[in-house]
Amino acid sequence: MDITVAIDAMGGDHGPHVTVPAALEALKQDDQLNIVLVGLYDVIQSELAAHKALSHPRLHVHHAAEVVTMDESPQSALKNKKDSSMRVAINLVKSGEANACVSAGNTGALMATARFVLKTLPGIDRPAIAGTLPSQKGLTYMLDLGANADCTPEQLLQFAVMGAMLVSAVEHKPNPSVGLLNIGSEDIKGNEVVKRASELLRASHLNFYGNVEGNDIYKGTTDVVVCDGFVGNVALKTSEGLAQMMGRFLTEEFKRNWLTKLMALIALPVLKRFKKRLDPRRYNGASFLGLRGIVVKSHGGADSFSFLHAIHTAIEESRNGVLRRITEQLEIEHIKPSSRVNSHTEQLDNSAIIQSTTQDAL
Amino acid sequence: MDITVAIDAMGGDHGPHVTVPAALEALKQDDQLNIVLVGLYDVIQSELAAHKALSHPRLHVHHAAEVVTMDESPQSALKNKKDSSMRVAINLVKSGEANACVSAGNTGALMATARFVLKTLPGIDRPAIAGTLPSQKGLTYMLDLGANADCTPEQLLQFAVMGAMLVSAVEHKPNPSVGLLNIGSEDIKGNEVVKRASELLRASHLNFYGNVEGNDIYKGTTDVVVCDGFVGNVALKTSEGLAQMMGRFLTEEFKRNWLTKLMALIALPVLKRFKKRLDPRRYNGASFLGLRGIVVKSHGGADSFSFLHAIHTAIEESRNGVLRRITEQLEIEHIKPSSRVNSHTEQLDNSAIIQSTTQDAL
Repeated sequence: MDITVAIDAMGGDHGPHVTVPAALEALKQDDQLNIVLVGLYDVIQSELAAHKALSHPRLHVHHAAEVVTMDESPQSALKNKKDSSMRVAINLVKSGEANACVSAGNTGALMATARFVLKTLPGIDRPAIAGTLPSQKGLTYMLDLGANADCTPEQLLQFAVMGAMLVSAVEHKPNPSVGLLNIGSEDIKGNEVVKRASELLRASHLNFYGNVEGNDIYKGTTDVVVCDGFVGNVALKTSEGLAQMMGRFLTEEFKRNWLTKLMALIALPVLKRFKKRLDPRRYNGASFLGLRGIVVKSHGGADSFSFLHAIHTAIEESRNGVLRRITEQLEIEHIKPSSRVNSHTEQLDNSAIIQSTTQDAL
Repeated sequence: MDITVAIDAMGGDHGPHVTVPAALEALKQDDQLNIVLVGLYDVIQSELAAHKALSHPRLHVHHAAEVVTMDESPQSALKNKKDSSMRVAINLVKSGEANACVSAGNTGALMATARFVLKTLPGIDRPAIAGTLPSQKGLTYMLDLGANADCTPEQLLQFAVMGAMLVSAVEHKPNPSVGLLNIGSEDIKGNEVVKRASELLRASHLNFYGNVEGNDIYKGTTDVVVCDGFVGNVALKTSEGLAQMMGRFLTEEFKRNWLTKLMALIALPVLKRFKKRLDPRRYNGASFLGLRGIVVKSHGGADSFSFLHAIHTAIEESRNGVLRRITEQLEIEHIKPSSRVNSHTEQLDNSAIIQSTTQDAL
């Protein structure tokens, strides 16, 4: 099936130096893929020239005069950068010219712009950010990773629907299991929001496993772990911090003296495979779920290998109709648009501020 | 300075087989230490006999006829086990016969009993559980680790005071830095409770660093990290899960074939030092803070090396007047007893249920 992905070529710490080679590699791997590179025409052209790819039949360049900076506030991006590569890439999804868009830009600005341009799906109060983490069984999908610091039980149910449908689409699992992140496995435990959400999930048609705890994320107890954006973001960044520290400790121990360095040299193949298994680049590409269009956020510091992974996520979501699956499941769960959706601007500002906090983590 | 520590000899998965040898080792290391072993007299005596230590001048056995099981509900422990080793050990602190008590028993029951017997310090609404985590700079003290799933900004301030005074006492740091766990470093970020808590902390006399994020726990950005018990418990258990997974991945890679096994053999000394650096036994001993007495909770599965560490924590807190420091700092911050304290039973049930969730994690 032919897919067109719009890429914010200017986004991220490295811009076209990363996005262009990643796009070319994606085209090489998938002959039913079309890519639109959005951004400053001349800059993109010169990058394409450097890769001797000025005339690729499935690659198009769409000029956008402005660039959203990595530290720009969501409000400023929304108000002052109407012709930014980020905004125009999202516009292409809105107009149907692209099936999905990928950006390594400023998370807050991307979420605020995506919500403003695409709007949320009927029945979804607020979009959520879903990411994947390695587990002892494979992958765990987790949401929300920071878009919504305060959530209602109804929103957690919506996140569960979105996460389950994402896994069914991308992992081709018919009935993914969903866990509700809590501080104990019994229903009586946790705060009031989680207790109520647990009841809603139990009453839903989803494959609800029940409450899970922090360690279950890496055990791979469930396919999906649902939590509010505050808890999700803390769990994600705590994991980053611990992995960094453990990596550093291991390096320090091997660098202690010439003998340990020799041991490191001998054990290098194993240490490399170990490192590769946890390589965050292999988990790059967070999905903004709950919007009327597919938006994938790449880590700002992504290299082209990592950015390519985010493009693949966008392709998978498009090919396997994640939006249709979410919409259908929302109907099955009788989740109707709530009044909360009307107070749009309040949400936008509030969420935009909060969303910008996830930048480092994604 | 002479210190007497009451030990719940029956608590934990292994009871006297762990608590008795740990107590004997503690006495050997500290000639100003007295220990009261609380529990079933005959069982403790036979364990002492096995260690040829039936007549130690600084060791006393205090009989208690009942034992709180690891899966017993806090309510049942409170109502039905008035002569449990756990309760009697706490009674000895209340009566002043002991400076502190240590138990590896059921967390929920221990917290509920400690609160019921000792009561909270003036100005403290609810006790919190503080633990230590390894960081790139040494140790990070974190609270609450699960005693309070929902917290007010005022409670987070109280936690900050308690955590800072714990560090000043145990680590001998005059002015420990305090970070508020959030999903972004700017004050505008996070949920409403955290935003308000940030204002209170900024207005306090504590050395408030500002907001910190999950990765700062392991970076060692601040001496103390403050958060509500839900977030703290998730961060703790997520860390446990990730560390377990990374350890397992490393083992799997080294066990892949005879060659990698040979590499492991060669690198063993380094791998052992790495493992030791992260050995959770070295961080055993969570402090229940905010009570009118010192209570230290050991991990239920602790071995004697690990339990000994919990005893040391109790000794340090006693010798360095952690209760006095907390009380004085609460006065400096003008934190007065709040009305919330009156609704004691509600708190007890609610907190007891929640506290029992921290059992696996501690």
